[in-house]
Amino acid sequence: MPQPRIPVPEKALRALVSDLFTAAGTSREHADTVADVLVWANLRGIDSHGVSRIPRYLELFENGQANPRPAIGFDQMRSAVATLDADGAPGPVALTRAMDEAVSMARSAGAAWVAVRGTVHTGAIGYYTERAAQYGMAGLGIVAGVPNMAYPGSNGVGVATSPLSIAVPAGRHPTVLLDMATAVIALGRIAVLKASGRPLPEGAALTKDGQPTTDAAEAAVPLPVGGAKGAGMSLLFEMLAGGLTMNPIVSAYHGGTPEGRRHRQNAVLMAIDIAAFTPVEDFRRTVDETIDSIKSLPPADPAQELLVPGERGARTLDERLTGGIPLPQKLLGTLRTLAADRGVTVPGELG
Amino acid sequence: MPQPRIPVPEKALRALVSDLFTAAGTSREHADTVADVLVWANLRGIDSHGVSRIPRYLELFENGQANPRPAIGFDQMRSAVATLDADGAPGPVALTRAMDEAVSMARSAGAAWVAVRGTVHTGAIGYYTERAAQYGMAGLGIVAGVPNMAYPGSNGVGVATSPLSIAVPAGRHPTVLLDMATAVIALGRIAVLKASGRPLPEGAALTKDGQPTTDAAEAAVPLPVGGAKGAGMSLLFEMLAGGLTMNPIVSAYHGGTPEGRRHRQNAVLMAIDIAAFTPVEDFRRTVDETIDSIKSLPPADPAQELLVPGERGARTLDERLTGGIPLPQKLLGTLRTLAADRGVTVPGELG
Repeated sequence: MPQPRIPVPEKALRALVSDLFTAAGTSREHADTVADVLVWANLRGIDSHGVSRIPRYLELFENGQANPRPAIGFDQMRSAVATLDADGAPGPVALTRAMDEAVSMARSAGAAWVAVRGTVHTGAIGYYTERAAQYGMAGLGIVAGVPNMAYPGSNGVGVATSPLSIAVPAGRHPTVLLDMATAVIALGRIAVLKASGRPLPEGAALTKDGQPTTDAAEAAVPLPVGGAKGAGMSLLFEMLAGGLTMNPIVSAYHGGTPEGRRHRQNAVLMAIDIAAFTPVEDFRRTVDETIDSIKSLPPADPAQELLVPGERGARTLDERLTGGIPLPQKLLGTLRTLAADRGVTVPGELG
Repeated sequence: MPQPRIPVPEKALRALVSDLFTAAGTSREHADTVADVLVWANLRGIDSHGVSRIPRYLELFENGQANPRPAIGFDQMRSAVATLDADGAPGPVALTRAMDEAVSMARSAGAAWVAVRGTVHTGAIGYYTERAAQYGMAGLGIVAGVPNMAYPGSNGVGVATSPLSIAVPAGRHPTVLLDMATAVIALGRIAVLKASGRPLPEGAALTKDGQPTTDAAEAAVPLPVGGAKGAGMSLLFEMLAGGLTMNPIVSAYHGGTPEGRRHRQNAVLMAIDIAAFTPVEDFRRTVDETIDSIKSLPPADPAQELLVPGERGARTLDERLTGGIPLPQKLLGTLRTLAADRGVTVPGELG
């Protein structure tokens, strides 16, 4: 049964998130960054990666797996490559910084590849690639995390549901923004379906005993999209992100030590400066024309509009900026309790 | 019914391919490059992208869509970005040069992103990313071609089956090499199944009337892997490769002009110099350990070994280097006819 939802204004929610994070020990600047990334996901309808993740972040601070006062290291080795050592910083803090550095490096080198070592919970990585697009660049991002997805030929956990995101700026249209897990559906989405009592599609997940299931409550191991394709992408993302930062996660996890099973993530973010290739306005026009050609394809169902990546999210953003973010009552209760426990004042608009 | 196959030694096949291309007007150097790329695909078992494509290349030369004597332009705009204007060169010629330039640029910039404008038939793009791995770098490649795949919500042709490839060097193990179409299965693979009378998996293709089919002979429109995911990757590859080179294919194709439907492809190749991040030997060891951890996962079927991307291809390579490439008799006949028509001598080992 779907839960009742309360529409919440984004500004009030942002303020609450920021206060919860400063109460957990982060700087105001870092707290605002986390709030921006999480509320961005909710505004775009990616509720699985929004403020519902806050309890988990706070738990990671409390058990020492995340660091509220990280000493972030940044080392630009050559004109187009750098490593950001996150020192356990929340993903939004580490990856926002990494993409900003990538954009800055790409201004001179034309493109930049920044590897991020040892962050936690990156949130919706579309946030960072869209950030590049806002600077008139193309953005690309991959993340590699702790195994939670099946690998073809094995029914247990093998690799992670590690996502890929690519964003390019358009002109008349919203930024084209692909943000996809390498699983058929992401774990966060399974949690959303479970909470609302809805079933999974066929072929999306296994139970903890390795049996196929469509029951979201029984689903324990997501399956890779396209079998060997999704699993292969995930494995290569691990080898790139974990190999370049010398912080491998998959092999450490399967090594079976408690340290190997600790939550952590590596990532790679890239910015490509379109202006090095062609005037950005020409690029934007080309993207617009491509979008128009897709949206003009003959629809299979005349009542159903064809969408391009990021379009639904951009519409949800418009709706939620004016109508508020519909938060499940239970989640709002959880956030209120977390606030009360930490002496954080809940903004009046949050009821 | 599977066709009879004749084992053919790779050197003799390579010589025949090279002679066929020089007879079509290419330089010996370019012909050898094409032979290397096509025979590489056959050696690794990717027969859909091997010498079976030769009749199509020759047709493209004859109808003027491919250029046997291209004036390839190369423009390095900044330290990490360049554009290669292929001038209709065969994909193997354009993309081998592009990856070599990317590797050379990555030696100083750390990473390099080379956009390729207006080539034809790139072949198996794993060839180019593996080439980066042979230099101790990570390689990444995307290609964007003429629409031939369905887009979610439409039953006709919308976007292309554009592939993604990523390669990283290992130590004890073969190079890890992902090379995947964004379709459930590639068109070339459908052709192979059709030739051998085998069915397609469910959900892989539509007929020309937009109906689902498992009959390889009826299959006209491949479906994207993971629906919106595969289609989204393909569309973003088009926007990146076509947008950065100002040579959009998807919008031109749907514009409906004959020029818009001409065969051509754009691409992006990247090299990332691992040595900028960490000693390459350490990276290789990390990759080896990750492979070992995957291969040690509990198998669903104890008789079935778990494989990593590129592993099957590396084994087929070993087999075919010694035992020959098993070419369908019919294809060998076609190659012989093409040779006879052009006064090209067929090596004795090809029967």
